[in-house]
Amino acid sequence: MNKADLVTSIKHKKSYLCVGLDTDTTKIPAHLLKAKDPIFEFNKYIIDATIDYAVAYKPNLAFYESLGKAGWESLEKTLEWMPKDVFTIADAKRGDIGNTATMYAKAFFEQLPFDSVTVAPYMGEDSVTPFLAFKDKWAIVLALTSNAGSKDFQQLSLSDTNQPLYKEVLKKCAAWGSDENLMFVVGATKASYFKEIRTIVPDHFLLVPGVGAQGGNLQEVSQFGLNSSCGLLVNASRSILYAANDETFAAAAKAEAKQMQQEMKTYLEDYLSW
Amino acid sequence: MNKADLVTSIKHKKSYLCVGLDTDTTKIPAHLLKAKDPIFEFNKYIIDATIDYAVAYKPNLAFYESLGKAGWESLEKTLEWMPKDVFTIADAKRGDIGNTATMYAKAFFEQLPFDSVTVAPYMGEDSVTPFLAFKDKWAIVLALTSNAGSKDFQQLSLSDTNQPLYKEVLKKCAAWGSDENLMFVVGATKASYFKEIRTIVPDHFLLVPGVGAQGGNLQEVSQFGLNSSCGLLVNASRSILYAANDETFAAAAKAEAKQMQQEMKTYLEDYLSW
Repeated sequence: MNKADLVTSIKHKKSYLCVGLDTDTTKIPAHLLKAKDPIFEFNKYIIDATIDYAVAYKPNLAFYESLGKAGWESLEKTLEWMPKDVFTIADAKRGDIGNTATMYAKAFFEQLPFDSVTVAPYMGEDSVTPFLAFKDKWAIVLALTSNAGSKDFQQLSLSDTNQPLYKEVLKKCAAWGSDENLMFVVGATKASYFKEIRTIVPDHFLLVPGVGAQGGNLQEVSQFGLNSSCGLLVNASRSILYAANDETFAAAAKAEAKQMQQEMKTYLEDYLSW
Repeated sequence: MNKADLVTSIKHKKSYLCVGLDTDTTKIPAHLLKAKDPIFEFNKYIIDATIDYAVAYKPNLAFYESLGKAGWESLEKTLEWMPKDVFTIADAKRGDIGNTATMYAKAFFEQLPFDSVTVAPYMGEDSVTPFLAFKDKWAIVLALTSNAGSKDFQQLSLSDTNQPLYKEVLKKCAAWGSDENLMFVVGATKASYFKEIRTIVPDHFLLVPGVGAQGGNLQEVSQFGLNSSCGLLVNASRSILYAANDETFAAAAKAEAKQMQQEMKTYLEDYLSW
């Protein structure tokens, strides 16, 4: 999916919600465990329940890989079930040398039909650019994450710039691609940082985890993060997936997604006059 | 596998060679493509040919994932084929928040029977420590890699220490575990750096890519990298796997592995008197 189509979808749904499919067999409603493929069954209900309110879906690869071949099968079926007009993100956080990065790109862009994959920047340029060579596909590079460990390395100040490492990641990576094939992960627990981040990458989409469960504030993220093309995909996983864990789970997920979409709609109106 | 058993195996084989299984259907001999599972068929021959000279095997996950479910199956079969006394490394370079890192650990340590997995440090402590909670399993954290992109972030100097980022990674990560559950990736193209690295992590095993194809020098790596428990696993992938690409490929791989082992044997004698 290209940028224009993503923006069209956001305008149409008045939403920049991404639903994270961190589907965990120990957390899904018990009655689904009787299904042939409980993971796919759960995802199907979640997608159908939230499709009016979400523009993107983000399966977390670890949850599928932990089930081996069966997990890979659930993932394939989930992607087949996805309506064609949603933006799909393989949350895989891959990062390796050039020929290996190309293999990962093939895994997610050709073997599976993902639009994008999350990428770790530690190994530098040749670990990121192979993902940018695929038409209408995206690399979403980790810049500032929302976990406690983000302080260990991402926020350390560099000698040359007196600025934290994550800003160097934003600057360098932005130069390797464009806002048509690169996005960045920026954790929402740092809403105050969005203003500064927008001076470095004014035009790029930012994928924002950490709203809700991890304490991020949607209003602040939107106020400082929105740009003229929206430029935000705000992810919610557990708060939607596990809003209820009985037979009402899909309805509860729908209500939770709708509530976030309604809030997003007001920010699109207030800050962008959309 | 614990550290004592790994050292025993190194002493027994007089080798610290790791064979990287970056098995690529476009590079294996044509006659194998007729097999039911060419990837597994190739790996089987390579393992059998090199087992007297190698103490570790390192499948590169990207090459298997790029083939989807079938690739996962080839990987499972390859691990089943592995003799029990070799050290196995999932070269996956994973790195994610705590609950996701635990899922990756389950994927590689429980769903698959790997001894270790390579881990990217960018997301910090909670992305590394979940791998350390599994008995006799290892996290192998990227410190300094051998690719061109290592200069982009790993080698940037930090304000607080005036030292490059990768040294901070070594220092911090070493404190999160021990030399019984943590190793580090250190690229061999920087053999001169091994001396300094050994002052930071004197006791840890280092996984060393980049010897051969990427220009690293085995003698220098061994001189500066060996410690009293050996402390090195030197990886070779393409130079062994694709030493020949006709029906002699297994014999050629064996000769190449033997040559590296013979050289390692002299360094174990010269530098450690083993």
